[in-house]
Amino acid sequence: MSGSGAGGDGAAAPRRRTVLLSGLAGAGAGVAAGVGGALAAERPAPSPDTRLAAGRASARAFRGTHQAGILEAPPAQAAFVAFDLHEQADGDAVRRLLTVWTDDIERLMAGRGTLTDLEPELAAVPASLTVTVGVGPRVVELAGAERPDWLAPLPAFPEIDALEDAWGEGDLLLQICAESPTTVAHAQRRLTTSVADLASVRWVQRGFREPFEGPGIPMRNLLGQVDGTVQPDVTGLDADLLWVGADGPAWLRGGSSVVVRRIGMRLDAWDRADRAARENAIGRRLDTGAPVTGGTLDSAADLEATDELGFHVIDDAAHMRRAHATAPHERFLRRPYSYDDGVEGGGMRTGLVFVAFQADPARQFVPVQRRLAQADLLNLWTVPVGSAVFAVLPGAGSGEVLGQAMFA
Amino acid sequence: MSGSGAGGDGAAAPRRRTVLLSGLAGAGAGVAAGVGGALAAERPAPSPDTRLAAGRASARAFRGTHQAGILEAPPAQAAFVAFDLHEQADGDAVRRLLTVWTDDIERLMAGRGTLTDLEPELAAVPASLTVTVGVGPRVVELAGAERPDWLAPLPAFPEIDALEDAWGEGDLLLQICAESPTTVAHAQRRLTTSVADLASVRWVQRGFREPFEGPGIPMRNLLGQVDGTVQPDVTGLDADLLWVGADGPAWLRGGSSVVVRRIGMRLDAWDRADRAARENAIGRRLDTGAPVTGGTLDSAADLEATDELGFHVIDDAAHMRRAHATAPHERFLRRPYSYDDGVEGGGMRTGLVFVAFQADPARQFVPVQRRLAQADLLNLWTVPVGSAVFAVLPGAGSGEVLGQAMFA
Ligand code: HEM
Ligand code: HEM
Repeated sequence: MSGSGAGGDGAAAPRRRTVLLSGLAGAGAGVAAGVGGALAAERPAPSPDTRLAAGRASARAFRGTHQAGILEAPPAQAAFVAFDLHEQADGDAVRRLLTVWTDDIERLMAGRGTLTDLEPELAAVPASLTVTVGVGPRVVELAGAERPDWLAPLPAFPEIDALEDAWGEGDLLLQICAESPTTVAHAQRRLTTSVADLASVRWVQRGFREPFEGPGIPMRNLLGQVDGTVQPDVTGLDADLLWVGADGPAWLRGGSSVVVRRIGMRLDAWDRADRAARENAIGRRLDTGAPVTGGTLDSAADLEATDELGFHVIDDAAHMRRAHATAPHERFLRRPYSYDDGVEGGGMRTGLVFVAFQADPARQFVPVQRRLAQADLLNLWTVPVGSAVFAVLPGAGSGEVLGQAMFA
Repeated sequence: MSGSGAGGDGAAAPRRRTVLLSGLAGAGAGVAAGVGGALAAERPAPSPDTRLAAGRASARAFRGTHQAGILEAPPAQAAFVAFDLHEQADGDAVRRLLTVWTDDIERLMAGRGTLTDLEPELAAVPASLTVTVGVGPRVVELAGAERPDWLAPLPAFPEIDALEDAWGEGDLLLQICAESPTTVAHAQRRLTTSVADLASVRWVQRGFREPFEGPGIPMRNLLGQVDGTVQPDVTGLDADLLWVGADGPAWLRGGSSVVVRRIGMRLDAWDRADRAARENAIGRRLDTGAPVTGGTLDSAADLEATDELGFHVIDDAAHMRRAHATAPHERFLRRPYSYDDGVEGGGMRTGLVFVAFQADPARQFVPVQRRLAQADLLNLWTVPVGSAVFAVLPGAGSGEVLGQAMFA
């Protein structure tokens, strides 16, 4: 690793989240804007009413090289829904299911009801809705397509895993994101019922982020940490980290993969840790999110800095050090959501739906996760309770059905 | 009932929700504004950044004659948390608990961490946070105060009830509302841990409404209906319907009562009903929320109108007819939230946390609920699975502790 640390200009140099979030000032405020779009501050300020109306009406584009829901700044509400195909399902069933979903999703994202929708009013508020479809190995097999090696459960991480089957792999995944929980609930319902003859729900993980996120207003997870600061530049130099290219199966070009890990937080134990221990665990300050080596949120962390005693200022087992890429390919796009199903007593019903997109999870994600499993101060307070991997289908071009290249 | 219908000028004449929501244009958009405050449109339009920042920073007043969280336009996120006092709790325990909560709530609503808060950053975004405290009969008894007759479980409604104990009465209630789910989660956590020695969580019901609600943009529940249209004018002429007055126990003057009924929706059956059946069930249109007798959302329903065959246009068992007050005192403030914990299969994990505030639930709420239990087309698709009643403490004046008059 270069001495310049996390913000250095080495091959693994991360880009700031502001790149990713550049669309959000518009999105959160109600103007549909793609990633890389101009900051809202650079536009003429719309009137409050326009902004409110536009926030409801904001519709994302469905058709394109890539699916929506990956590059966009994450909206405030999400549901991750895994499905199991019914036992007797064959390739034709998969094709029909994807045909139905393609049509449903295109309509819903445009603010229209689905074909059989008796509640188009609930669809009329797209609120930046995106729906992203992933598939598991069984779908690929039924379609008769080549399965990428990585499309399989992650290796076990026995040091940390307390996985529950209930949150495990499925045949299909929908990632449904929008600024409005009603929009998410309605899309989830319609996409579940429209394929009820072919597949049933395996699990649902609901998550949330801050409705007020935007440039200069970062997300905080439920441990109170600024989360999502260091990201690859997936709309620019690092696009290859995100999208399956010529070395992947032809049907998956322009697609990606997603790892969904449900990570519980031991809030009772966290409450007993003092601020110094908490900041040490990550290597970043709780107030500003800046590295403990100084500066602001956007400053490069100095992983080499030492104190008077010669110890690293950023702990050797600090999460950000252990998670930091040691090679250019060890990077991925994090797009997590908080969850809080906290009902009775303590339990582990609060945490993070950790979501990572990358072209190849075995090559990019697993080495980092392995390093974190071996040593990461954060492990004192976090426990993975679910893990699943899906191939993220390429986008559907005009007239195309999602995943149609699987059947070619 | 007078022939002029729901919008008539009889004693039971309802006021439009716009009265209640007049603060929301500001609140949703980020300007702290009390109920009855000027519409945002009447103010000079702040710049987008100001609005975003103000939306996060918006703090509601804690101290006052009444508790916060009742008159305010409901923010997008809520958690209803019922607590059981530990078995050995006595009056002194109650007093200590309310002392701790008073301080906690005042701080949290002002955007400050609680006394023992190690994550003041999560409190720094008050996002219109309100916390409203209710008490059950055991608390009143331990405090040695007079129990109002109505502070007891509602009578059974055997025609419709499928109540689960898990959602039943508790000793204490917190209603936590804010525009940000992280703010709600943090307040819930802090208020739970700060009194962990005295009380434990019995149930949590999380709910949501639309982040884009406001004048002209009504709430839709998960049946797709415009909900919350007809309300009493609780900030004006009908204030007596809401607040306990001279005829109630002295310790409760300025307080209120809250009924929290968890009502599941049979979405599968609802999906099979056509639009005509759905509109007939309420007596209002699905698209605009206007009465089926014509006009707009704000138009008075004509309960007497008949069709060519002489039948009432608004069905005799339509929800709005059956729910409509037949006497001036049969009214209350509805402040419901949608819930969608929809995980496996169909189930009844989607519905409405029905929340009603009134001075006297036995007199105001029960006759309406009884009428609805006896006949209401909506009952085909809705099932009450939880029911609880709490006394809502009066507001805490300067230097006062919530509920201190109970100990007088
Ligand atoms: C509940 C679990 C987790 C929490 C609370 C958490 C929190 C954080 C925080 C606060 C940061 C510093 C700010 C930032 O750059 O975003 C961070 C950085 C990071 N985390 Fe996590 N994290 C969790 C799990 C994971 C997992 C499972 C992985 C991957 C296996 C991961 C990978 C990373 C990476 C790559 C970075 C950036 C490191 C760098 O500075 O280069 N995190 N995380
Ligand atoms: C899931 C259950 C329920 C749903 C989906 C529901 C839905 C609705 C809808 C769509 C309206 C018409 C628009 C409006 O004025 O808000 C309405 C009106 C009303 N509902 Fe309900 N409601 C439910 C339960 C209840 C319950 C339990 C009560 C009280 C016991 C109640 C009392 C009322 C009242 C008083 C009105 C106004 C009637 C009038 O026009 O005067 N509702 N409800």
